[in-house]
Amino acid sequence: MSSSPEAIIDLRSDTVTRPTPAMREAMATAEVGDDVYGEDPTINRLEQRAAEIFGKEASIFVPTGSMGNQIAIRLHTEHGQEVICEARSHILDWEMAMTAAFSGCQVRMVAAERGILTWEHIRSAIGVGAKMYYRAQTGLICLENTHNMAGGTVTPLAVMEEVWAGAKEAGLPVHLDGARIFNAAAALGTDMATLTSGFDTVNFCLSKGLGAPVGSLLVGTRKHIERARIFRKALGGGMRQAGVLAAAGLIALEQMPARLHEDHANARLLAESVAKSDQVEIDLDAVQTNIVIFQLKNDGDAPSLVAALKEKGVFASAISPRVVRFVTHFDVDRAACERAAAIVNVELQKIA
Amino acid sequence: MSSSPEAIIDLRSDTVTRPTPAMREAMATAEVGDDVYGEDPTINRLEQRAAEIFGKEASIFVPTGSMGNQIAIRLHTEHGQEVICEARSHILDWEMAMTAAFSGCQVRMVAAERGILTWEHIRSAIGVGAKMYYRAQTGLICLENTHNMAGGTVTPLAVMEEVWAGAKEAGLPVHLDGARIFNAAAALGTDMATLTSGFDTVNFCLSKGLGAPVGSLLVGTRKHIERARIFRKALGGGMRQAGVLAAAGLIALEQMPARLHEDHANARLLAESVAKSDQVEIDLDAVQTNIVIFQLKNDGDAPSLVAALKEKGVFASAISPRVVRFVTHFDVDRAACERAAAIVNVELQKIA
Amino acid sequence: MSSSPEAIIDLRSDTVTRPTPAMREAMATAEVGDDVYGEDPTINRLEQRAAEIFGKEASIFVPTGSMGNQIAIRLHTEHGQEVICEARSHILDWEMAMTAAFSGCQVRMVAAERGILTWEHIRSAIGVGAKMYYRAQTGLICLENTHNMAGGTVTPLAVMEEVWAGAKEAGLPVHLDGARIFNAAAALGTDMATLTSGFDTVNFCLSKGLGAPVGSLLVGTRKHIERARIFRKALGGGMRQAGVLAAAGLIALEQMPARLHEDHANARLLAESVAKSDQVEIDLDAVQTNIVIFQLKNDGDAPSLVAALKEKGVFASAISPRVVRFVTHFDVDRAACERAAAIVNVELQKIA
Amino acid sequence: MSSSPEAIIDLRSDTVTRPTPAMREAMATAEVGDDVYGEDPTINRLEQRAAEIFGKEASIFVPTGSMGNQIAIRLHTEHGQEVICEARSHILDWEMAMTAAFSGCQVRMVAAERGILTWEHIRSAIGVGAKMYYRAQTGLICLENTHNMAGGTVTPLAVMEEVWAGAKEAGLPVHLDGARIFNAAAALGTDMATLTSGFDTVNFCLSKGLGAPVGSLLVGTRKHIERARIFRKALGGGMRQAGVLAAAGLIALEQMPARLHEDHANARLLAESVAKSDQVEIDLDAVQTNIVIFQLKNDGDAPSLVAALKEKGVFASAISPRVVRFVTHFDVDRAACERAAAIVNVELQKIA
Repeated sequence: MSSSPEAIIDLRSDTVTRPTPAMREAMATAEVGDDVYGEDPTINRLEQRAAEIFGKEASIFVPTGSMGNQIAIRLHTEHGQEVICEARSHILDWEMAMTAAFSGCQVRMVAAERGILTWEHIRSAIGVGAKMYYRAQTGLICLENTHNMAGGTVTPLAVMEEVWAGAKEAGLPVHLDGARIFNAAAALGTDMATLTSGFDTVNFCLSKGLGAPVGSLLVGTRKHIERARIFRKALGGGMRQAGVLAAAGLIALEQMPARLHEDHANARLLAESVAKSDQVEIDLDAVQTNIVIFQLKNDGDAPSLVAALKEKGVFASAISPRVVRFVTHFDVDRAACERAAAIVNVELQKIA
Repeated sequence: MSSSPEAIIDLRSDTVTRPTPAMREAMATAEVGDDVYGEDPTINRLEQRAAEIFGKEASIFVPTGSMGNQIAIRLHTEHGQEVICEARSHILDWEMAMTAAFSGCQVRMVAAERGILTWEHIRSAIGVGAKMYYRAQTGLICLENTHNMAGGTVTPLAVMEEVWAGAKEAGLPVHLDGARIFNAAAALGTDMATLTSGFDTVNFCLSKGLGAPVGSLLVGTRKHIERARIFRKALGGGMRQAGVLAAAGLIALEQMPARLHEDHANARLLAESVAKSDQVEIDLDAVQTNIVIFQLKNDGDAPSLVAALKEKGVFASAISPRVVRFVTHFDVDRAACERAAAIVNVELQKIA
Repeated sequence: MSSSPEAIIDLRSDTVTRPTPAMREAMATAEVGDDVYGEDPTINRLEQRAAEIFGKEASIFVPTGSMGNQIAIRLHTEHGQEVICEARSHILDWEMAMTAAFSGCQVRMVAAERGILTWEHIRSAIGVGAKMYYRAQTGLICLENTHNMAGGTVTPLAVMEEVWAGAKEAGLPVHLDGARIFNAAAALGTDMATLTSGFDTVNFCLSKGLGAPVGSLLVGTRKHIERARIFRKALGGGMRQAGVLAAAGLIALEQMPARLHEDHANARLLAESVAKSDQVEIDLDAVQTNIVIFQLKNDGDAPSLVAALKEKGVFASAISPRVVRFVTHFDVDRAACERAAAIVNVELQKIA
Repeated sequence: MSSSPEAIIDLRSDTVTRPTPAMREAMATAEVGDDVYGEDPTINRLEQRAAEIFGKEASIFVPTGSMGNQIAIRLHTEHGQEVICEARSHILDWEMAMTAAFSGCQVRMVAAERGILTWEHIRSAIGVGAKMYYRAQTGLICLENTHNMAGGTVTPLAVMEEVWAGAKEAGLPVHLDGARIFNAAAALGTDMATLTSGFDTVNFCLSKGLGAPVGSLLVGTRKHIERARIFRKALGGGMRQAGVLAAAGLIALEQMPARLHEDHANARLLAESVAKSDQVEIDLDAVQTNIVIFQLKNDGDAPSLVAALKEKGVFASAISPRVVRFVTHFDVDRAACERAAAIVNVELQKIA
């Protein structure tokens, strides 16, 4: 590679963020205990703060968002049921088929424009099979907000409210994969408790836009979170002195949401720059948070473009043969995004 | 109900067929043994004949087609993989999510016109995730021929040949849910061995169009069928003197395929009659075997129509709020189908 | 083999019984329907009669006892729990680890003298782990009466009553693997409803001592049996015109229990004959029903003895390197048992 | 509680150890990257060092020992098999029945004196069922060294060598739950590579005697560890900047084993002190590493004793109604153990 390491602009994902000095300092001085026995004070503080911010009774720290989502699915379902998810959702595409392998449930996938699942979509996925003993029954509805593979799109509050109402009437629980729910909140200017009030459980990540090195939280009722401890232990997530991670997580939770609008502005900058190329199809209205997804026209080959950009020090993802994704985050500032935009445009011109 | 039992014309499914006198006689005189020990001579004969007819090494008798399909899925996959199925397939919609609950696999569903999955569909469902350790990998491809919920449509040999070739190159096994493969063979005029030569395993039912009271067979290589015995035992399908069922099954297998074209002609008759109504949308080209599916226009309500028909002694299925299905079979002869067609037209006119 | 087929005395298991002429006749004339839709009148009659005889609300026909037991385990537990079973129980040793593979539960095995699990055994297996979130919790207690691998031993009513009381207090369900519960009832002279009143569910077999070719029934509350239909369908046990099997099953259920004492007397005869050999250790007090288990002393090799007996037309089972089992049943009458006893003694003398 | 926090002597488990200042410093300065992409240099260094020390090709970092063990079980087995474990093993008693719930395998438990499973035990657990298609087959053998619930007992090399040879001949893989294998190595004075050479995989913990806050490693062949990455991701153990934990882990791995003999001497001190009480039964020969287990005689009640000790600032575990366990570790020095011994003796005298 021709670029020096420090010159790398890593836009593959917001998972690559490195802990801030403040986080590192907090880790080094964290008060810890054995969390399997419930005795880690820093973990306890983090779990309490998360519950408060989301307006829920309780929360539990887990090493990854995948574990948080899979615990939630296990909590709400029994083996042999169906879980309704959007067709490009993280739960479906990036969690190793654990909805099947751990919870024994079938994903009923529904393709929705911009990844925004409405009650209408869900209602028809519950379907005519409802209440026949010889069909698998719907056990859970999952939403994803913001929706990663649809390009960081935001599900508006009104759409969620309709889902909450419909699900309640149907007697079905609703889980939110809110890995990037703080990005949605920043985009909507809504507080977290309002934005998630109708969900039975919400999973969110400290390690993406919020910058912590490791960890997610699952929030919900006290009863759900108590049972979640069982499944976290089962999945091998019952860590001991996890307070070292929680210390960084507390900073992520308290201080980092306030700056997410910067990532959104940087994504906008990249998107508008890319949109100038006639080699590219991009839905600028879908660029609502920190993710930019665009499609190459004609014979454009996403992996080749990604390889060419890597040569110039800009890391991106080819998420399908024609589709490229950028994700902005804390470790890539405005200036770096401007440099990246320029490099991308040069490479796009070469395709033409 | 105003109709006498004998007057009932049951077009809900070909699963309702009752054993013929010859089958009953065969059951009463069957030579039997303990099949768990491999000592039931009638079962052994049936399994051998099925293998011969399909040009495969071996076969195994199972109580239901669902068990046959689920054994096949278990045979070819491991927990945490994906199984590619058409979006309205029996494996997905009518087998109790057992692909997840027993085999721990996620169904990757692909909607295909008339239920006919092509290699192009499958290739894109295997997707860019192939070979990344952090994505679930495709473990199996399933076809359904004829395709029940698409209306008994037939997948042509050429389409299957392309799937076989593609799957072979991709190193993926292919299973056929051939519950009604004898209907496909009758429609295509192709022998069974040719029609299924590229499948690793095929499940077919004795109890639908072929009229046996109970039973299906899974055919494949000797090695697959030997392992299938393990999973049949696990699922609780290791019956003892099952020869009483196999005796009826042998008659179904040997004698009944030759008459399936009658059911197809009867389905045609019903379809063309229904098509005359302006209350109905029907794709006559999709009526290729013994199933007729049509949609009610305007405000037509399928459950209401089905209820009205039941009053007149014609049993049908509402497979969604607007869609009605008829299935023709051995127990409903030409005259009964003509009567049914007349009754249906009267009821359709009432909707108008 | 030197013996002609008709000379064979098959004492391997009571699963080898062949249907009687009356059963065959009943199968040939059975009134049938589609049982998935609940429309098979013979199945419905059998299920109703079984419920009446056991004094329970409902029952469901299943193709095998393994399926009946595994449905019961699934009914009463959730994944990640423990099921308490005796250390040589059928559920543990002969059901393909489906307690794990289908219900996701761990068997907590407890060795009990003569296979008779008491409340004391069970209480300590529930253990100090009770109520710690980080230990798997007990979900179900299973008894087996009579106990096959312990030699057909009978659990007395008083022992079961203590288990029922203890389990009730602990809030735990109790299932009976009553594959041979009619043998226990015959030995104890107790009616079935009394003998099983405290169990939440009971599985019993039509195809062992009762002589039907195929089938078992699971009995319990209406609510449990309704859910059992879901799991029977999932496991692939939702057969269509199953009335052909139920017809034989009704005869097995109504007429065959009255003659089980003959099998018990024949087992006694065999046991007492074997006990005369000084090559053998046998607990005659444990020979309580239709099973005889004995151990070879010194260097006696069970598989060799079984092979030698087979040469002479007597089929037995080597259930471990030193242990042989005989099971008496309807197809082996008194005279045959006497012949078998003589042959066994000759072979035992050869060992000396 | 009457004791001040700093006076607490926590002998419940070696899981309660807190990170050392050197570990905290290392965490604060660790070089990190995204480990899902294989880009965390500190993780990579830790995994390489672990492989070197164990003389294996590769290793993988996991958040807990339970996850390491359960990944190993999943690696070596398929659903429906049996896993042979000692009757008080951690895998059986403390991993939430995940052998069943995730790997679908049944634990075949074998009680062994002092928890030391020999080839003789294992051979008979593989049993006569071997190679019958209608019995669950053994898929894996697990040893635990040192054995926690047997009191930290050490399985000698010669015993393991016999197991390795037997397993190899039987074609069965062998996994070591080596959560405390460094304690075994310290006790035996054997290097790690020799002590584990015959195991297919070994799991060991950084967070027990070695004092790291979080983490374990699974070591084995490159092929096994590559597949392990799949299952770690599935279980939700694919952490991002996990280097912050690995930095502490490297210190634990390199520097802490050399001091384990101190914990062993402290355990000895406690054991010999306890043995003086006539209220206690203790097998002093079984006190081989850092665990002390003793039983109360007469009406002694372990939970009451544990509660009384807690009042005095000594934390212990009641692992059954009559059995108490102490575990020594880095955070409890010689002087503290002497104090604890004195307090324990006072409380034991009160029982008398």
